[in-house]
Amino acid sequence: MTQLISVNSRSYRLSSAPTIVICVDGCEQEYINQAIQAGQAPFLAELTGFGTVLTGDCVVPSFTNPNNLSIVTGAPPSVHGICGNFFFDQETQEEVLMNDAKYLRAPTILAEMAKAGQLVAVVTAKDKLRNLLGHQLKGICFSAEKADQVNLEEHGVENILARVGMPVPSVYSADLSEFVFAAGLSLLTNERPDFMYLSTTDYVQHKHAPGTPEANAFYAMMDSYFKRYHEQGAIVAITADHGMNAKTDAIGRPNILFLQDLLDAQYGAQRTRVLLPITDPYVVHHGALGSYATVYLRDAVPQRDAIDFLAGIAGVEAVLTRSQACQRFELPEDRIGDLVVLGERLTVLGSAADKHDLSGLTVPLRSHGGVSEQKVPLIFNRKLVGLDSPGRLRNFDIIDLALNHLA
Amino acid sequence: MTQLISVNSRSYRLSSAPTIVICVDGCEQEYINQAIQAGQAPFLAELTGFGTVLTGDCVVPSFTNPNNLSIVTGAPPSVHGICGNFFFDQETQEEVLMNDAKYLRAPTILAEMAKAGQLVAVVTAKDKLRNLLGHQLKGICFSAEKADQVNLEEHGVENILARVGMPVPSVYSADLSEFVFAAGLSLLTNERPDFMYLSTTDYVQHKHAPGTPEANAFYAMMDSYFKRYHEQGAIVAITADHGMNAKTDAIGRPNILFLQDLLDAQYGAQRTRVLLPITDPYVVHHGALGSYATVYLRDAVPQRDAIDFLAGIAGVEAVLTRSQACQRFELPEDRIGDLVVLGERLTVLGSAADKHDLSGLTVPLRSHGGVSEQKVPLIFNRKLVGLDSPGRLRNFDIIDLALNHLA
Repeated sequence: MTQLISVNSRSYRLSSAPTIVICVDGCEQEYINQAIQAGQAPFLAELTGFGTVLTGDCVVPSFTNPNNLSIVTGAPPSVHGICGNFFFDQETQEEVLMNDAKYLRAPTILAEMAKAGQLVAVVTAKDKLRNLLGHQLKGICFSAEKADQVNLEEHGVENILARVGMPVPSVYSADLSEFVFAAGLSLLTNERPDFMYLSTTDYVQHKHAPGTPEANAFYAMMDSYFKRYHEQGAIVAITADHGMNAKTDAIGRPNILFLQDLLDAQYGAQRTRVLLPITDPYVVHHGALGSYATVYLRDAVPQRDAIDFLAGIAGVEAVLTRSQACQRFELPEDRIGDLVVLGERLTVLGSAADKHDLSGLTVPLRSHGGVSEQKVPLIFNRKLVGLDSPGRLRNFDIIDLALNHLA
Repeated sequence: MTQLISVNSRSYRLSSAPTIVICVDGCEQEYINQAIQAGQAPFLAELTGFGTVLTGDCVVPSFTNPNNLSIVTGAPPSVHGICGNFFFDQETQEEVLMNDAKYLRAPTILAEMAKAGQLVAVVTAKDKLRNLLGHQLKGICFSAEKADQVNLEEHGVENILARVGMPVPSVYSADLSEFVFAAGLSLLTNERPDFMYLSTTDYVQHKHAPGTPEANAFYAMMDSYFKRYHEQGAIVAITADHGMNAKTDAIGRPNILFLQDLLDAQYGAQRTRVLLPITDPYVVHHGALGSYATVYLRDAVPQRDAIDFLAGIAGVEAVLTRSQACQRFELPEDRIGDLVVLGERLTVLGSAADKHDLSGLTVPLRSHGGVSEQKVPLIFNRKLVGLDSPGRLRNFDIIDLALNHLA
């Protein structure tokens, strides 16, 4: 008899075959498409024969943490609470990283599966996600970034560096993601977990456009691991936390709207607070610049006026009130500002110019955060059933699809 | 004393140096950016030193004919009348190509310059544009497509094949555009026209993504001609008729909404007419699929209902009434349908599935037509002045900028 677990109002069958859900950070669909065209992703190219390729919408803000948490909870940020990498804590009146599990408001499917007796493994590229993804998880959970510190007591496994046969990679490298896949393969071969969640970093996608040699090489690397997982009998389900777009003009200069400077000029200093939820400890490759910002208004700044002012700026795609944004994007009301501002596809939103260090932008800026990066792939190495009119698919349906809809 | 001409309510200085305005068909800004990154566009890479690089908006529908005519008239389609390659003629009740000069409602700057005594030359890739661009022009005007038929009486020049030293290129080739540039160079060297307008075809951009070897090679070719024009003392001004985006899922299958089929299923056959203004005699490389359609409603199809129906279809970005579309995009009311439908960035709009021949789509579909392809480059090999707060720039400002704003 199939065992079911229920998490955040959804039911999941426990899988009989090892199931690997992969979140390819920043995987604009065009990366896969172009790698296939270049002949560098032969496994993905043949997937339509025996697998399933769909498109879904990610969570907006199209950032890493909100989407990874949505995927592992099967729920939007209004349920799990993580609506950015960074937020303004109304209680402490401080801008803080949202990478502590205390901010998580919902159980993960991962932890609940482990409670139901499944062997669950999580491997992330950066350590920042490990706390959130591994919350209350009794299983294997570690990051490539701190692979040298992995121990049995804390991470449920040991000797990872030697098993993988790679040194600890730089946090700004393609190798950091390759380490995740190599570690996943080692776990699949040895521990053979019932369920694995692998989450990469978008360093390559921030730096290189789809179809370029560097991007194709990165996807070739992934393709080879997907094939090996498939050959070992695993169910492989691939999605992304968000897409990725160029954010520059024709000669690679970034299109940046420094919203804090614009608002200060309009309303005076200290009257508004622009918060960029893309901010995290690793911003060298994107300068903390994405296409989503939230704005707190102080007394005497009239909301209607601020909306009109912001909406009138070229490059702004939309300005929503807190309640509009929370309804449209299913966000937690207490963790976003009075307004949400979305940049157009080619435009990023900054706070004040002097707060951004752009010295690390050695190649033209590519970034995400907006609705323009909402489309992501949903790819399976099996045929799915019961999806005749699925309606709108989300990246956070992937565990449901992988466990409940396989033919 | 500087001589001025006035065309369509704007004034233009007649240039003292040869001025070459180039419309690079389908030049999404990222093509230039990636070619520079790959080291294949050294002239464009160094332009910021002595030139000017700006971004502007093209005309929506982001198709070739409306934009080329806007560029050469300095005016939107509401003034010049050309709002597609194809339209439904209300008078004759027929769907017809809009490439006859009888549909043009405004004089071109080109013809007016020639009347003022300037030597004007126009070279297009495809012959379809030649009629419109050359309307009432006393000067040189021919297409690469029919270069073998060029004669003094009709085209103002002769012996072009021998002068260029290339055979007549295929209409589906990169060579068709290269022929335009090579012919332009021959004219610049020999006749040295006061003003040249060169217009390419987007065959390469429909087939190849920015940063791919084929796209980079095409931009390297253009870069080498821009450099030679510059070295011969010409003022070089480069823009595009529209951008270009992938219109597929992760494995390259096109995202197509067959609007006629959807409307027929909802309202019955013959109740609505979906017209695709991208349609022209050369649709093999895009299957007449773009992100813009106009819909005529017959009696008893309620407009409000049709708008709600269309707007509710996933992949539709917006549905506008005729008057809304004409106001927002400055279109001629008598040449568009009751509704205008825009596809999202990754989605194209078709009529009925059986009306589209997709057999020519040998590579993943890339196309245009929507607001997602509205951003285009405005590039000059000189510094501009008097542009401190230019407001919204359009591609059809390029002749004004090239003639009236050079330092």
